[in-house]
Amino acid sequence: MPRARHAGAGRESVTAHQEPPVELTAAAREDGVDAAAAAARRLIDSLLRAGDGTEVAMSGITEQLTAIADRLDAHAPPFDERMVAMWAGDATTRHDPVTGPENALAPPVRFAGAADGSVSAVVELGVAYQGQPGCAHGGVSALLLDHALGVANHWGGRSGMTAELTLRYRAPVPLFVPLAVTGRQVAVDGRKLWAEGAISTPDGAVCVAAKGFFIGKHLPRPR
Amino acid sequence: MPRARHAGAGRESVTAHQEPPVELTAAAREDGVDAAAAAARRLIDSLLRAGDGTEVAMSGITEQLTAIADRLDAHAPPFDERMVAMWAGDATTRHDPVTGPENALAPPVRFAGAADGSVSAVVELGVAYQGQPGCAHGGVSALLLDHALGVANHWGGRSGMTAELTLRYRAPVPLFVPLAVTGRQVAVDGRKLWAEGAISTPDGAVCVAAKGFFIGKHLPRPR
Repeated sequence: MPRARHAGAGRESVTAHQEPPVELTAAAREDGVDAAAAAARRLIDSLLRAGDGTEVAMSGITEQLTAIADRLDAHAPPFDERMVAMWAGDATTRHDPVTGPENALAPPVRFAGAADGSVSAVVELGVAYQGQPGCAHGGVSALLLDHALGVANHWGGRSGMTAELTLRYRAPVPLFVPLAVTGRQVAVDGRKLWAEGAISTPDGAVCVAAKGFFIGKHLPRPR
Repeated sequence: MPRARHAGAGRESVTAHQEPPVELTAAAREDGVDAAAAAARRLIDSLLRAGDGTEVAMSGITEQLTAIADRLDAHAPPFDERMVAMWAGDATTRHDPVTGPENALAPPVRFAGAADGSVSAVVELGVAYQGQPGCAHGGVSALLLDHALGVANHWGGRSGMTAELTLRYRAPVPLFVPLAVTGRQVAVDGRKLWAEGAISTPDGAVCVAAKGFFIGKHLPRPR
């Protein structure tokens, strides 16, 4: 278990550069629902970029999308069964709105864990995540960082539920550039966990910093 | 200007029950890009509910969605022009990831302002917003509350950018129930603004409480 190696969160490891990062979130498959979700993700972006006023008939698109959704719904398993499948296996989920390759809301972000106890990801946000002009919505930064801190706790050796999250917005988060999203579990005291993280621009400037306090428990998994 | 009427944020108005709430966010139109985005929103949900393992050919869906996106992209205006159109008019945007009817990421939430200075919305979150089993992702609650506080500042008479946001998670936020999302500007000192908000269940229990500190400025609009 690689997690045990850096259970002392915050400890620097001199061997960090020698160990490849460990993938902590689901990789997108090139077919199946992942590919359809990726296409849906692109479609969301294309709808926003087109808007009304082009010569594309939106009514035809609405009909096509509705027909696809109807077909999917007609063949979907009972929701209870699907929930069991969604939550089967280890802590990695394939459906969440941050990293889930099956979820078109998710950019998706892919976190990796390093030997020094930190987790990180690189993500470019498109126009669907816009808050102020050309910049990410402040709440989208919060969404990414809440998840980053959750992954950091998992990588640190103990996961929990967010009890308090504080975000400090230092500078706007630009769209369309490769952002670094980082996290690290900084302290553990019994069931109490603390983690920190940040979103930075490619030149290393921190745009948003996050601190979180977590309680070491999870809601029961469907079964 | 209704905003002037309750510029003293937090002041209770005895006439509150006599005045209908004022819509503060864009209403979805029943056709055009809004209808296509609504269909895309449903499709995201249907993809998640189906997952892999049904007899629906995801490859065909991927092809259809890609073809639609290709067609939209081929007819989209230059992005600079589209950005100007997105940001034209008053503070109400039609594209943001919380309230935007053109954005399939948005639930969408529709906020209304009351005469007592508060803003509120009712929203049901589907499986695409799931964090822990059956509950909203903590970061999604943060996204909704950051936006609610921004709308509250606007309704309070002065808008700003989030400088600090603190979220306290008291109880899981259930999916599939009508949640109340509320906000209120609680103090103004020159360019400094403070606002508070909450997400509550239908029985009035507060699941997540938010406090925000804002600086009264906006990034320039594209023109």
